[in-house]
Amino acid sequence: MTRFFNEESSVETVNERMGDEVNPRLKALMTSLVAHLRAFAKDVNLTQDEWDFAIDFLTKTGQISSVERQEVILLSDVLGLSMLVDAMNNRRPVGATENTVLGPFHVEGAPIRKMGDTISIDGKGESCEYVGRVCDLQGNPVAGARIDVWSDNADGYYDVQQPQVQPKWNNRGIFVTEADGKYNFLGIKPVSYPIPNDGPVGKMLAALGRHPYRPAHMHYLVTAPAFQKLITHTFVGDDRYITSDAVFGVKDTLVAPFERVNNGKTVWRSPFDFILVPDEDE
Amino acid sequence: MTRFFNEESSVETVNERMGDEVNPRLKALMTSLVAHLRAFAKDVNLTQDEWDFAIDFLTKTGQISSVERQEVILLSDVLGLSMLVDAMNNRRPVGATENTVLGPFHVEGAPIRKMGDTISIDGKGESCEYVGRVCDLQGNPVAGARIDVWSDNADGYYDVQQPQVQPKWNNRGIFVTEADGKYNFLGIKPVSYPIPNDGPVGKMLAALGRHPYRPAHMHYLVTAPAFQKLITHTFVGDDRYITSDAVFGVKDTLVAPFERVNNGKTVWRSPFDFILVPDEDE
Repeated sequence: MTRFFNEESSVETVNERMGDEVNPRLKALMTSLVAHLRAFAKDVNLTQDEWDFAIDFLTKTGQISSVERQEVILLSDVLGLSMLVDAMNNRRPVGATENTVLGPFHVEGAPIRKMGDTISIDGKGESCEYVGRVCDLQGNPVAGARIDVWSDNADGYYDVQQPQVQPKWNNRGIFVTEADGKYNFLGIKPVSYPIPNDGPVGKMLAALGRHPYRPAHMHYLVTAPAFQKLITHTFVGDDRYITSDAVFGVKDTLVAPFERVNNGKTVWRSPFDFILVPDEDE
Repeated sequence: MTRFFNEESSVETVNERMGDEVNPRLKALMTSLVAHLRAFAKDVNLTQDEWDFAIDFLTKTGQISSVERQEVILLSDVLGLSMLVDAMNNRRPVGATENTVLGPFHVEGAPIRKMGDTISIDGKGESCEYVGRVCDLQGNPVAGARIDVWSDNADGYYDVQQPQVQPKWNNRGIFVTEADGKYNFLGIKPVSYPIPNDGPVGKMLAALGRHPYRPAHMHYLVTAPAFQKLITHTFVGDDRYITSDAVFGVKDTLVAPFERVNNGKTVWRSPFDFILVPDEDE
């Protein structure tokens, strides 16, 4: 053991400094972080100017964040880290509906609506009927499942991004299944939109030659007693950004049909079943 | 190549998204960063709650930063990353004075003082005479070397931390060598002090069972035409924190003698020579 820091033994020097009474999980996390930070810096031969730039970038990323805007999450999102953490923590058997990221626009407390009702309060956009079932891996219907849904409006903004412009709870609602597990509601066919790109993360994306758009998607948070929580989206498959989601949220199994029906009631129809996994903790 | 993100191919999926016209150095940096972030997350099986905590921690670390306080640098410092970057970028031949971190308290524009003058304007603390030479690797004196020095005061604060309490440029000054390369000035024997520990980084240190103190040190920034810039400290060897500097700044060769002299002129005397390396870029 060296007394002092040097380039070769830096990981050991830093990690040996931790006390004996430290929470073991925290110790494991920090020990690994210190080692991986060093490996990165060494691999790229990080210069002092680059380090200065990174410090300034991280500072600005924290400083632009607020209650309405979370730029650090955005950074994690565009680097694929949010999806990786989501994937590692939500490995599911084949056939179960896959997870994807929650995103920053979920709001607790949306109104519970009657099956068949619309979530489009402003009436703008192309109407779409969403239909399907909530069931278990054997195809049995799940009763009492809460389907919390939200999407952007026809202009690509969530209601919370435009509190002066959109009516409250526009394009949001909660639907609860009956014994047959079925659901249906009206909304709009969502549209693609850019993630906030006037901050440090937007500048980074531009420098990396990447666009800031997310392909059109409907958000779902599905919960039911004795089943694992499902956080997911369904995606519009022919969206121009479907293979280049700025936050990497798309999965093959989450691309849903959007069928043009024009049946007098609605322009589009999107069928999708949510297959839940039993909660082993229960 | 997979169309969409998945846990196995996440690094490739993210990195393939970069455009063809991206600055090659930026591309190399980001490609490595994405891979190392993934390796960290996978190694520790990062949970969603831990990720949430980290996002919040980084956000607060940016938000508490200001012109007077740089918490992101502090984070890098206590993880040993600042010293690693400094070490990688300042490898010097044996015999040359080693670098250490600049720290957040250097101020441009300190007054140029006459050789032998004091930098202790408030007169508080135990006086110390600093003496030595600036020379090259062969021992030849370096004339015209600018020695920019700064230290905390007897209470452990730099003047910029106490603009209402300390006189301007207290414990700061610049000395310029003559043909003999010699320098001498009066200051105080510096004292150990805690880095700012009322923010997220302080909380982290406490959770890791680490104290926030830096061992007593005098800062130096030595520049001379045709020589590499030297950023360093000298340390008080018998300081209780000498082997546990919160920012890992200590190196064996930077521990300087502090001899008690009590010669009527001063209480302490600290001799130290600065050995500069030719600047190959010149």
